[in-house]
Amino acid sequence: MGQTSHHSVMSPTNPEITVVIASPLEPELVERIRDVDRAHLRVIHEPELLPRPEFPIDHRGVPPGLDDAGLARWLALLREADVLFDFDWYAPADIPTNAPNVRWIQATSSGIGERVRGWGLDRSDIVLTNCAGLFGEPLAEFVVLGLLYLVKDVPHLRAEQSLHHWEKSVARQVGGMRVLVVGLGDLGSRISAALAGLGAEVWGLRRSDGPLPPGVVRRIDREELRTALGEVDALVLACPYTPETHHLIGAAELVALPPGSFVINVARGPVIDEPALVEALAGGHLGGAVLDVFETEPLPPDSPLWDMRNVLISPHAASNRASENERIVELFVDNLRRFLDGRPLRNVFERERGY
Amino acid sequence: MGQTSHHSVMSPTNPEITVVIASPLEPELVERIRDVDRAHLRVIHEPELLPRPEFPIDHRGVPPGLDDAGLARWLALLREADVLFDFDWYAPADIPTNAPNVRWIQATSSGIGERVRGWGLDRSDIVLTNCAGLFGEPLAEFVVLGLLYLVKDVPHLRAEQSLHHWEKSVARQVGGMRVLVVGLGDLGSRISAALAGLGAEVWGLRRSDGPLPPGVVRRIDREELRTALGEVDALVLACPYTPETHHLIGAAELVALPPGSFVINVARGPVIDEPALVEALAGGHLGGAVLDVFETEPLPPDSPLWDMRNVLISPHAASNRASENERIVELFVDNLRRFLDGRPLRNVFERERGY
Repeated sequence: MGQTSHHSVMSPTNPEITVVIASPLEPELVERIRDVDRAHLRVIHEPELLPRPEFPIDHRGVPPGLDDAGLARWLALLREADVLFDFDWYAPADIPTNAPNVRWIQATSSGIGERVRGWGLDRSDIVLTNCAGLFGEPLAEFVVLGLLYLVKDVPHLRAEQSLHHWEKSVARQVGGMRVLVVGLGDLGSRISAALAGLGAEVWGLRRSDGPLPPGVVRRIDREELRTALGEVDALVLACPYTPETHHLIGAAELVALPPGSFVINVARGPVIDEPALVEALAGGHLGGAVLDVFETEPLPPDSPLWDMRNVLISPHAASNRASENERIVELFVDNLRRFLDGRPLRNVFERERGY
Repeated sequence: MGQTSHHSVMSPTNPEITVVIASPLEPELVERIRDVDRAHLRVIHEPELLPRPEFPIDHRGVPPGLDDAGLARWLALLREADVLFDFDWYAPADIPTNAPNVRWIQATSSGIGERVRGWGLDRSDIVLTNCAGLFGEPLAEFVVLGLLYLVKDVPHLRAEQSLHHWEKSVARQVGGMRVLVVGLGDLGSRISAALAGLGAEVWGLRRSDGPLPPGVVRRIDREELRTALGEVDALVLACPYTPETHHLIGAAELVALPPGSFVINVARGPVIDEPALVEALAGGHLGGAVLDVFETEPLPPDSPLWDMRNVLISPHAASNRASENERIVELFVDNLRRFLDGRPLRNVFERERGY
């Protein structure tokens, strides 16, 4: 792997490593990065050259609207960077030319495959590290919420409530349900444990064999997917998005699910064929869906998903939590120490796997 | 306790025990009761003399509208009853006179204290058994749903969705929250375990000392309640309703909760002073509430709770599940065997404790 070649980054002729912070970050967290090694690190953080965040942990934000001089300053900083904290907000596809010294980029999100391939950075030899493992906790909570929201039919409760109407009914329960979790990485494992804790029978789809994470009672192969779908009450998508998982769930897979079953997607939008999903929901085959991700984001205002009673939409924000930047910086600080010591980095994006 | 006196219910002169089914029940479940002892049991089930259920597991239903002859038949059956499955739908307060031979009534709900006291049956010497322990699983799921619903601000998500509006924000999370669960019986224990499983720090209020149920890290005394309320993010009520827990949570307790905190009630309505709750919600002190129970049920159409954005109302149906009657009959069958053998019954209502 790429990072193993960084054995002695600090030679007498190269005493300093320049880290450029390329997306919004709180000044106190920048200081925490500087504290890693004040003798050998030059950490550049110029907030006025960065996008303005629209909410506390916004990594994209609104472009700063730089004039020519400002942009020239930003490009000059990039030229000095050995390490980038996040992808260059300005021209990520041009990082190899605009930042020719960059050997490592620490991304601030977990699923970076789609963007990396879109920008062509998978063809560069820059080491990329992602934030896999940092979003499992809030996303697992969101999946539990989503499944209970559908199983207990909250849309019905709300409709009754808006009519001031008191009528008892019988709801289903997660306890005893069978749920297929696609992807058993950190995210899928946490989701599985949470659902098993509520008494669900959790099946998991992953490529590799070996011990299953706690709570998962059966492994499903990709070849068994369609058969397995016919035997579950709910499908949860928690896999990386790669060419292999593109439209993993299409019309045939959705039809294979039993009538009234539920779909929850916290992976990436294009893991599902979205028009097929819309059809399966509109036609009443599915009981409902909870979606944090979409084929096009922001979800276009004319998407039929917005107005579906049994669909809960989250604007790709289910993983957001106030402490996110702190956790990202913890990971980055650890990786930075490893980088300076020439040890292998954590969370390296593996080009051959696509995530 | 009352039931220990039933040592030899079957003597040569009393070969038969008459069980009268007094609320709607599926015929196949009645057969399961008959199977307990076909030689010594006479199980009377006359659906046309019983209320008609409005939904699958409805134990109250619509009165059958009997003419004089029908009513006379029902009263004649009651006179023969040694055991009642559920309280007489017609005149529960008159059971001691209308069913003078009844020694035991198996109720079909968990919290029967309020009704038993209202009907004066607490002053009879009929053994009463409740269904405590049968509703913990669905109610714990409802509490998890309720807390996540408030913590992830689903009302905000739905409002945004109805506007086709995509704007990311940061939600709180249950992981790391501190939750006080009032009542650590079967229900409170299950709720505590589920919330602890999501990473919440669970405190529990109960009278008795001794080992805490799994997941509960601190016991709160009644005397410490108000202080403890100031230190939690959410309050979950899961205690029996007794004179002692009447308005346990009043205006002072609600004010003691931190601004923006959440209240969930799956106990009984009058455990909270409802006008004080309405005020704490309307004034914006509380972040929201999820309520399955109310001081008056059905909740009156003019209650301000219906229209509150951050309140989720369930019509005292959160414990309902399709398999409920099966589980009640399992308990009843076990208790019936105990009754016939003269062994102590399970789930005896304790008059001195009030539940």
